Order: sequence, then structure tokens, then C-alpha cells
Amino acid sequence: MPAKIRVSIVGGSGYAGGDLLRLLLGHPQVEVMQVTSERFVGKFVHSLHPNLRKRTLLKFVSQEELTSCDLLFLCLPHGSAMGKIDRFAGLAPRLIDLSADFRLKNPADYDRWYGKPHARPELLPKFAYGICELHREAIRKSNWVSSAGCNATAVILGLYPLFKNGLADKERTVVEVKAGSSEGGNSASDASHHPERAGCVRSYRPTGHRHAAEMIQELGFGKELAIHFSATSIDMVRGILATCHVFLKRAMAEKEIWKVYREAYGEEPFIRIVKEREGNYRYPEPKLLAGTNFCDIGFEKDPHSDRLVVVSAIDNLMKGAAGQALQAFNIMHGFDESQGLEFTGLHPI
Amino acid sequence: MPAKIRVSIVGGSGYAGGDLLRLLLGHPQVEVMQVTSERFVGKFVHSLHPNLRKRTLLKFVSQEELTSCDLLFLCLPHGSAMGKIDRFAGLAPRLIDLSADFRLKNPADYDRWYGKPHARPELLPKFAYGICELHREAIRKSNWVSSAGCNATAVILGLYPLFKNGLADKERTVVEVKAGSSEGGNSASDASHHPERAGCVRSYRPTGHRHAAEMIQELGFGKELAIHFSATSIDMVRGILATCHVFLKRAMAEKEIWKVYREAYGEEPFIRIVKEREGNYRYPEPKLLAGTNFCDIGFEKDPHSDRLVVVSAIDNLMKGAAGQALQAFNIMHGFDESQGLEFTGLHPI
Amino acid sequence: MPAKIRVSIVGGSGYAGGDLLRLLLGHPQVEVMQVTSERFVGKFVHSLHPNLRKRTLLKFVSQEELTSCDLLFLCLPHGSAMGKIDRFAGLAPRLIDLSADFRLKNPADYDRWYGKPHARPELLPKFAYGICELHREAIRKSNWVSSAGCNATAVILGLYPLFKNGLADKERTVVEVKAGSSEGGNSASDASHHPERAGCVRSYRPTGHRHAAEMIQELGFGKELAIHFSATSIDMVRGILATCHVFLKRAMAEKEIWKVYREAYGEEPFIRIVKEREGNYRYPEPKLLAGTNFCDIGFEKDPHSDRLVVVSAIDNLMKGAAGQALQAFNIMHGFDESQGLEFTGLHPI
Amino acid sequence: MPAKIRVSIVGGSGYAGGDLLRLLLGHPQVEVMQVTSERFVGKFVHSLHPNLRKRTLLKFVSQEELTSCDLLFLCLPHGSAMGKIDRFAGLAPRLIDLSADFRLKNPADYDRWYGKPHARPELLPKFAYGICELHREAIRKSNWVSSAGCNATAVILGLYPLFKNGLADKERTVVEVKAGSSEGGNSASDASHHPERAGCVRSYRPTGHRHAAEMIQELGFGKELAIHFSATSIDMVRGILATCHVFLKRAMAEKEIWKVYREAYGEEPFIRIVKEREGNYRYPEPKLLAGTNFCDIGFEKDPHSDRLVVVSAIDNLMKGAAGQALQAFNIMHGFDESQGLEFTGLHPI
Repeated sequence: MPAKIRVSIVGGSGYAGGDLLRLLLGHPQVEVMQVTSERFVGKFVHSLHPNLRKRTLLKFVSQEELTSCDLLFLCLPHGSAMGKIDRFAGLAPRLIDLSADFRLKNPADYDRWYGKPHARPELLPKFAYGICELHREAIRKSNWVSSAGCNATAVILGLYPLFKNGLADKERTVVEVKAGSSEGGNSASDASHHPERAGCVRSYRPTGHRHAAEMIQELGFGKELAIHFSATSIDMVRGILATCHVFLKRAMAEKEIWKVYREAYGEEPFIRIVKEREGNYRYPEPKLLAGTNFCDIGFEKDPHSDRLVVVSAIDNLMKGAAGQALQAFNIMHGFDESQGLEFTGLHPI
Repeated sequence: MPAKIRVSIVGGSGYAGGDLLRLLLGHPQVEVMQVTSERFVGKFVHSLHPNLRKRTLLKFVSQEELTSCDLLFLCLPHGSAMGKIDRFAGLAPRLIDLSADFRLKNPADYDRWYGKPHARPELLPKFAYGICELHREAIRKSNWVSSAGCNATAVILGLYPLFKNGLADKERTVVEVKAGSSEGGNSASDASHHPERAGCVRSYRPTGHRHAAEMIQELGFGKELAIHFSATSIDMVRGILATCHVFLKRAMAEKEIWKVYREAYGEEPFIRIVKEREGNYRYPEPKLLAGTNFCDIGFEKDPHSDRLVVVSAIDNLMKGAAGQALQAFNIMHGFDESQGLEFTGLHPI
Repeated sequence: MPAKIRVSIVGGSGYAGGDLLRLLLGHPQVEVMQVTSERFVGKFVHSLHPNLRKRTLLKFVSQEELTSCDLLFLCLPHGSAMGKIDRFAGLAPRLIDLSADFRLKNPADYDRWYGKPHARPELLPKFAYGICELHREAIRKSNWVSSAGCNATAVILGLYPLFKNGLADKERTVVEVKAGSSEGGNSASDASHHPERAGCVRSYRPTGHRHAAEMIQELGFGKELAIHFSATSIDMVRGILATCHVFLKRAMAEKEIWKVYREAYGEEPFIRIVKEREGNYRYPEPKLLAGTNFCDIGFEKDPHSDRLVVVSAIDNLMKGAAGQALQAFNIMHGFDESQGLEFTGLHPI
Repeated sequence: MPAKIRVSIVGGSGYAGGDLLRLLLGHPQVEVMQVTSERFVGKFVHSLHPNLRKRTLLKFVSQEELTSCDLLFLCLPHGSAMGKIDRFAGLAPRLIDLSADFRLKNPADYDRWYGKPHARPELLPKFAYGICELHREAIRKSNWVSSAGCNATAVILGLYPLFKNGLADKERTVVEVKAGSSEGGNSASDASHHPERAGCVRSYRPTGHRHAAEMIQELGFGKELAIHFSATSIDMVRGILATCHVFLKRAMAEKEIWKVYREAYGEEPFIRIVKEREGNYRYPEPKLLAGTNFCDIGFEKDPHSDRLVVVSAIDNLMKGAAGQALQAFNIMHGFDESQGLEFTGLHPI
């Protein structure tokens, strides 16, 4: 048996870091060395991630205590990694960053969408964008990977076959995401206070959501593209459902659309086309994906117009964060892409 | 004090009928005579509507037992009222129908959206369409009123000022409704079984939803109009949030849009424009409307495109059904429009 | 028409204060003068209580700005009122305190249950304990009333007929309350963060809950009494269900128990005995009580033992706080006890 | 590698059968041969269990088509297995029954708790009762195992160390279970209709719950024992929290109670003692256990009385059904007891 890959997690007290730690502890070819949290130094990781009780006795360490390893996962808040990237690169030959810091290729996009210039624009080309279904080869060859935003992942995977094949009108796509509360991270606020947040159907960023920048980058293929994106927070913890209204350039029957998706994703281990004639789960349903790395995609063509509705579901902390990162990790190391990502989800839930 | 209006409810075991009964029992100028249910004849109405315990000792009667009264509320399943309309018209000079049977003006729309021809197309012009904010005068003068569909009500009220003023592109409006389970009525099914329905984000009618017919009728002003409508069922019992993506024909600042809405709805007792800079409730939120007759409307203009996002919330059983019907009732009788509809909603909830 | 009672609310930004304000605005014999909040001085009350939009233009004032009025409602955090009681008493001849500061008759109970001595023990006898069903006459004659704790209210009302009639073993009663998140107030914390609090079934105070002190006081009738109380927080915002396991001193048929409850509560406007043979709501259900002042009580006798299970449900912010306070207010002023408390609750919800 | 164990599932369309199938498909030493469902013969198992999409192409077969195998899992409704047991025993040398049909040792208990005599009382002694922590040796030696009821499992595991050591009063234990909707199975009914079942806190079997029979059998150690059991259904799909009020025969400090539990369960792979001084998860929390085979147990001693509150949480479909069955399966075959049961649960969820 080959030596295990020694990894550490920088910023391991949050939700994405915690889910990543859970996955890594179950990966047979990984040894988790260190997990950092400045706020919880010295505490057991299971004090923050109670599902890991009896699973590990690791304790949080400070970033200053980090030692060298084979690969560092960066799970810091947006804006925190770019300033420390040299330090992290000095600790490990490989990096997978789960923040937004290196997702966008065009430095100007940071000014527009994140409101300030990027600290290290010259490094942006060095990162592979982490959606494996689109960039598998780049990820395989890269030492640095930047995981995609969760909403962006759901939407890009849902629409990629259409835009890649030039089938969709580039001016008119409208996307509405229904999102859970874990997307907002683990810091309590008035907005996340249970009596306020429970039962809510809260418009979050009707316009101007940052993840739209990634969608445009990945679906535009170098040309202008309008993605009219809105998000609505609902009473759910994990999960994203993206409902995408695409206007087709030419008439297409559903059978033909099936073919487009099958060609794009036929062999993908984590994409399922979900489109049933009966039953409760005729379209993708995020609750079925909790804990899994699947992206389920369905669609329905409006027989009376040129609209195609594409529905895409993921677990935002898995395929939208930790699972995606581990999938990229597997590709980088030549492991079976599903290693450590076998969980198939629960029903009922 | 003038004599009370004597009313009866036909089909009072369902959710809309039950909520209407609750409202009517609290209306000082109403006397509830009879409530029918073929299935529950002889049972106390509170056996089906447990919130009415200690509130009334009425029992369900059969439709055959109906006696004449001043006004009949029809709360039958879609398709049931049109065949019996002569009988009901013989029992009361005034009718308010909460089903879809007399909502559409064009008989051909019944063929297209409901899949079969209308039984009494000659009667369609006799019904006023029940959204009071659009048809107050017609309702005042009419003896027959047809209440609007719940999703249609939320969308029509949200978009009416824009379409009436010719501000919106007529080809490109995309509307996504998030809806609760009470919209599906009170009959249990595999789809409504709690372990399946709880926590779900279920695409319901991505295309072809019948309520789109009403939206086109009311917002088209006699011309072609495309409303690209989808609905998603979420883990909520009451409530609708409609997120409407409208593309403006010309550049408009938010201030100007404010003015359009204020002019349209400034004096309306049940419309509130909700658009705050801070707090948890910056946009309309259906949970705050449970039990109320309000339609809350907000909007946000995308500064980078011609898209205007309009967000509209109602309680589907109130402004979307029973409350709307009672508001029309008040108008028909010259009562204060808010009579019996004073409940202001709960917070937190 | 007589002059309205002029009232003010001290501490009106919280949940109980907000619900009380909603009720008072709908009470025909009340004029709300002032609502205080030190933190939100100058803001519209509807900025904190969004259900009051379009209902009032009141703004929060500071306690320092309070002017004299007919009655002050005190909705301050526990421990805040006792030190300022002279000031409040100087502003209004009548006080209704919703905090715990004057609930317990025995000063020593504050040491034991609240961990420090009472600041003004000599005033404790001047307050009537606010459960109207037990202390109607005392409330009628009193100028100062202290509202009961929410859990205490549900349990005391559920068990009062049994203990008053000496039917229950005094050593063995076990009570388990299921409670919603609004009970914890409107301050966000890690514990109330939605991803943590949602879906939870969280043991809260398995032993040592302060409300037990009130239960012992009211049900002990001056003698030793053990109430073994625990609370569990569930994924609900409003509502309490108390499941009380009582051991009867002698064999009693259910019919006889019915009679005991009917005699105790037969004429009470806000108590309903709920015990059905069929249907979904055979026992009290808190969701049906949201926004109402009802306390629904049911029971089942174990045919194989001496155990009687009593189930009691309330809305913690209504019968457990604001509604109870308004009921006492009505009694103090000789108004119809249901005035302003007519809302009958929603179904479905 | 040794030959895999060939297993089939009788009654595989329900929730327990579906979860068992999921587990078995992931067990490296198992080959799933057949899954029966009379109602869904010929359909893909993933049409009922959508989480198994892309995981298996198995289709349901009829019981008549069953062929011989190494072990049969029986997941039939209560009362169905006992009449067919000879047929099943003829098909496989080993049986694990998840129904109630062979749980109780005393045939008279079937008369009392299930309302009719047992069809094959002579077979009851041949079944080992499936709670592995109590009957590991019996299970190891047995060919027939009967899995315990879900509520019974949570309560028995929570209380076993106390009763085994004679520490608890045998007259006074009161147990209250909070349960999710999946406990009721996958058949829709009025009671499970989402608008009624959502948000509910529904008293279910305040007295007379059948699972109490198992608790008495397992905790009584051959002597009289009173377990005063009630269940309350809450808005949750998976999960059980049992709050058990035990009265200690003698004074015990928490430290001593710790020791009792540690001695009983110190080496158990699926029992965790959860009792923290801080954080959101100081006591067992069922949502953290979704999909896992853990039973988390905590306790708090009332310093002012002889009451000990023991809190026990499981996933009713896992440790309360499918997981428990697989754990027994592992023991019967000498496999690592955790094989196929490694999932550690999600957080947040």
C-alpha cells in the first residue's frame, strides 16, 4: 500500500471545513495532519463538529503551528487566503482553495463583483477552476485548484451542455436558486436567529449576487453572456435547487435535449439526469443529496414557447464545497474519483 | 343596525372553505346559514376545522339541503361548479365562486389550459374577476364574482403597475413561485405524505401551470403576452412568494419605479410596498402574512442590466382565496373593504 | 363611549412586547401612548415588528421620555423591573409586569431559583399572579399584576383541577414541555443560529428549570409538592405542548376526570377540553393556537396503571405572555375578558 | 477473499427495507440477490428509493419468485411474517426479522399488546432479541434474530445500565419519546398529509404504546416493572429522542453515574455518552444521527430530588431498524461489527 497523502485544513471550524474533515477522515489514502482555527485553538475538533465524536481526537491548532504536508486545503473566509498564499505555498506543494479568492480569471472581475482589487492577480492563471466535469484535465495537471462557489456549481453544471453547444440565447437566461441556511456560514446573526429565519422565504440578492461572475466566466466561453440570477433563502439547512429558464435558439424536442445532456455527462460519476414520469421525485430534489457529491439535473421543455426549464440540485457543502474539493483531490492524485465520496444519500429524510 | 347578510358556503370541508368560514364567523354583518360537505354531512364543522372549536356549533349539510340565502360562496373543486350553476343561481341572487370555473374570459382558454371545453361559455362574461385592486368597480356592480387563482393573484398584483403602464417587455417575463402545501388542498396522497413532502424543494409544473392563463388575461390588456411561469413547492404550509423577472423597455431608476407602484396602489388597504435598507424583512415575506389579506410587494432593479426583480407575497388561502373573496363581498355590499379582514399577522412566526 | 385607557409598553422591542403591542393596537378601548426601547430609540416600531407595517407609525422612545399614563406594561428582561419599580409606579397607577420579577410569593424562592436575593421582597404580596382562571378576583381588585411564565402557564392550567381537588400524588408528577424558539427571546446567539437550531430536538434544562418554582407555588396549595420538570426545544417558533404524567391517588374513570375539568373550567372563555376519538387533532396541538389566547387541555387515563397523562397546549407569546396580560387588563378594567383576543387561530398552518 | 453472503430482502418497498438495501449495497461482504414487493413487482428499486439512482439496477420481485439464499431480511408489516415463517425458513438458514412478530418472549404479551394471540408461540424462544449491546452472544449463536422496535431500542439502551445494576425505582419511570414521521411508514393517510402533519406536536399514544412491552421485557429482568411511556410526533422525518425520568433508589453523584454507563458501554462501537458543559450539542441530538447507527446517551441528575433524567437519541430507521439489523448480521457472521455502518452523520443538517 502506498504512503498516504498527508493533508491539513486551514480554517477548519466552519461548515465547509468541517464537512471536508469528515470526508478526509474516511478517505483510505489520506492522513489528516492538522486542522487550524485561531478561535478554537486547543479544542477538540468534535467540539465544533459534533458528528465527529468518537471518530477523531484531533484538536485545532493555530495557523502559526502549521507544518509542511503534501496538500493544504484552504477553507478561510473570502479575502483571507490571497494575502497569505505565499506562506501556504511554502508549506505544501499542492493547494486546494475553497474560498472565492482565486476563482475568477479576470482580475477586473474582483473589482466589479467583490468591490476591491485582487491582491495577487498574477497568480490567478495558476489555479484550475474546480468543477471537475468541465476542467478534469486542467485539474489533473495543476498543483493549485480553486473550488467553485456553491450556487455557481449548481447552475454551471445545469447549463453547461446547452451553452457549450451554442443552443441557448445569450441574453435571456434567468436563474433562481433556492438555498439553505448553511450557505451563510456558521456565524450567528440577527438574520440567522431561528425565530426570524425559520419558515422564511427570503429574497437574498435579487440582483448582484457574486456567484453570477463565475457563471458568466464558465458559460460565456469568452463572449458576452447575461445570466439574470437571483437567490431565495428557504427553511432548509443544506441544499440548493437552481431553476434555470433558458431560451433555446432553435426548436428542440425533449429527446434531442436528452441527447445533449447524455453526451456531455454520460460517463460522469456524480451527474444524474433526473426526469421521471411519475413518483414524488420526478425532478432533482436537494434533500435526497444531503451528504452526497451528486449533481442531479432535470429539464422540461415548454411546448408552447422556446423556453427550456433546467433544474439542478446539489448539497452546497458537498458538491458545492467539500465534496467538489475532494473530487479534485482524487483527480490530482490519480485516485478513483469517487474515493471517499461513496455515500448515496438518505431516503426518507 | 341593518339586517345581516345571510350567506352559505358550498363545499366547506376544504382549506379555502374552512378559512372563509372562519372569516365569515367574525364578520359583524354576516350570518352564516349553512355549510355543505357531502362527505361529512352531520359532522360539526369544527371536526374538520379544529380552530373553530368553541367558535361555532354548525354542522355540515348536504348540497340538497341548501335553502335560499343572500349570497352563496362556492368552494368546490375545479370543474364542479359550472355544471350546477343554475341551481346555485336559483338559491341566491349573488354568487362568489372560488374555483377556476369562471375565471377565464375566453372560452378557448379552457380547452387549452384545462383540457376540455367549458360547459357554459355564455356565462363567462357575467362574472367579475375577483382581484379587487384591478376590478373594484366591476365587482361593485356585479352579482357574480369569480375569485382569482392564488399564484395568479400574487403575480398579477406584483406586475400590474408595470404592464398597465407599458413598461415591461412582453416577451421575456419569467416568474418563479415558491408555494406551500396547502395549495394542493386537503386530500392526502403519496405526494403529500409527510416524510416525502417535508423538506422538499419540488419542481411543480416547470411549464404549463394553469394559473399562467389568468396572468396573461389580466396583464396582456388584450394583446399577446408571454409569462414564463414555474412553481416550486417548499416546506411551508401557507404562503406564496412570487419572484418575477421583468425586463424594462427603457431605463428607469428605482425612484421612478417607486412612483409607478405608489400611483397604482397608494390608497389600497391590502397592498404594502416592502423595500427596506436593513433588517431581516427587507423584501416581502409570506410567513408574516399568514392569516392576513395583504399582498406585500417589493422590487430591486439590476444596475447592470434592464432586469427588474419584483417580489410579491401573499397567504394563498387568504388574499389568494378566502380573504380575496371576502374583500369582494365587502365591495359588493358597500361595507368597509377591511371588515372582517383586520388581522395583521404574527411576528415572530 | 368612555375615554380610552391610555397605556404604554416599557421594553417593546422584544417578542412579548411586540405581540402585546399588536393586541393593544386592535383593542377598541385602548390608546397606545408610548413604546420604549433603549436600543432602537427613534425607529419605527414596525422596523422590529414587521407585521405592524401600515398598522401604526409609532416610534420607539427611551424610558427617560416616558410620560404618565393609565397603565404600564413592563416587558423588560428578567431582573430589570424590580430595581426600577418605584419609577414605573410613579408613572401609572396600574402595572402589569410580564417578567419573572414579581411572580414568586416567597422571597427565598428568588435565591433558590434565580440565584440572587430579590431587591424588593416587601412588594411581592402586592402583585396578583396573572393566571386569570386561578386568580380572577385578585386580579380584578389589584393594581399590580405579574404575568406567569409561559411553561408555567401551560402546566398550571393543565394540572390545576387535579391538584386543587387533591386527586394527584404529590411526589411523582413528571412534566415534559416541548417548546419553540421564540421562548428564548429575540437575541441571536450560537444556540439560535438557524443551521444549528433548525431540526433540533434539544434538551433544555432537563432539571432545574425556573418555571418549576411557579408550578410548585400554584399547585402546592401551601404544601410540599414535587413537579419533575424538563423542557425540550423543537423546530417550532411559537408554541408549547406540556405532557404531564400524573399519578392518581385513587382509581378514576375518564368520565369522572371529564367532570373534574368541566367543573373547573366549564365557563372559562379561553380553556378548551380537547379529547376526540378520531381525526388529526384528537389532543391539544399548539400550532392551532398560534396567535390565540386559548389553552387547550386533553387527557388520557392509562387503563393498566394509576397514570393520567394530561396534555396542555398554548401559544407561549399569547396565553403564555401578551394574551394573558391583556386578559388580566380586561379583568382589571371590567371589560369583556375576550376583548382584543378574538382571533381563533388558523388551520391549516 | 471469501465468498460474499447472499441475502434477500422480503418487503423492500418500505422505509426500513429501503434503508437496509442502501446499507447492504455498500457492504463489501454482501451480495443482494432479491428484493420483494408485491405492489411494485417489475419496477426498479430506485423508483421507490430515489437515493439509490445510479447505485443499483435491481428490480422488485414477488415473494413467489424468491430463491434460496444465505440470509433473508424480513421487512414486512407487523403480523405478516409469523404466518409465513416456515416458507422463509425453508429459503434461507438464517433470518433477521425487522417486524414485531418475534420480539416478545411471552406469548401472552401478544394478546395484551397486539390484541390477538401469536400464531406460532413455540418459535418465540428461537429468536434472539436484536439489541446487540444486550444480546451479543445470543445473536452470535443464533440463526434467527428479531430486531427491536425503534422507540424500544432508544429507551432500552438509555436505561439498561441503571436497571441492570438495580439502581432505579421500578414503579416510577416515566419516558417521553419525540418521534419523526418516518416511524409511521410510507403509506399516506389523512394523518400524514403535509398541511396537517407539518409543524405538529401531536400526542401519539399517551398510554398503551406497544413498544412499552419490549422495554418491560428487557429492563425488568424477570420481575415486575412499570415504564410509563408516551410518544409525541414532531415535525421531523427521521429520529427519536427519548427523555427518561428515572427515580434512583439511593443518592448518586453524576460522577458515579458516569461510571455505571462507562462500564456498561465503554467498548461499544455505537454508543456514545454525550454530556458537555458547553456548545449547542450538550445532550444527544437525533438530527446529528441521521444515517448513522449510533445511540447517543446523556443524563442529568436533579440536585434537588432523586430524579435522574436520561436522554437517548437514535435514527429510528438505522439503530432503530436497518442499522441494528445489519449490526446483528455482522455479529452473526463474525464480521467487524461496524462493517457497512461507518457513516458518521452530517453537521450541519
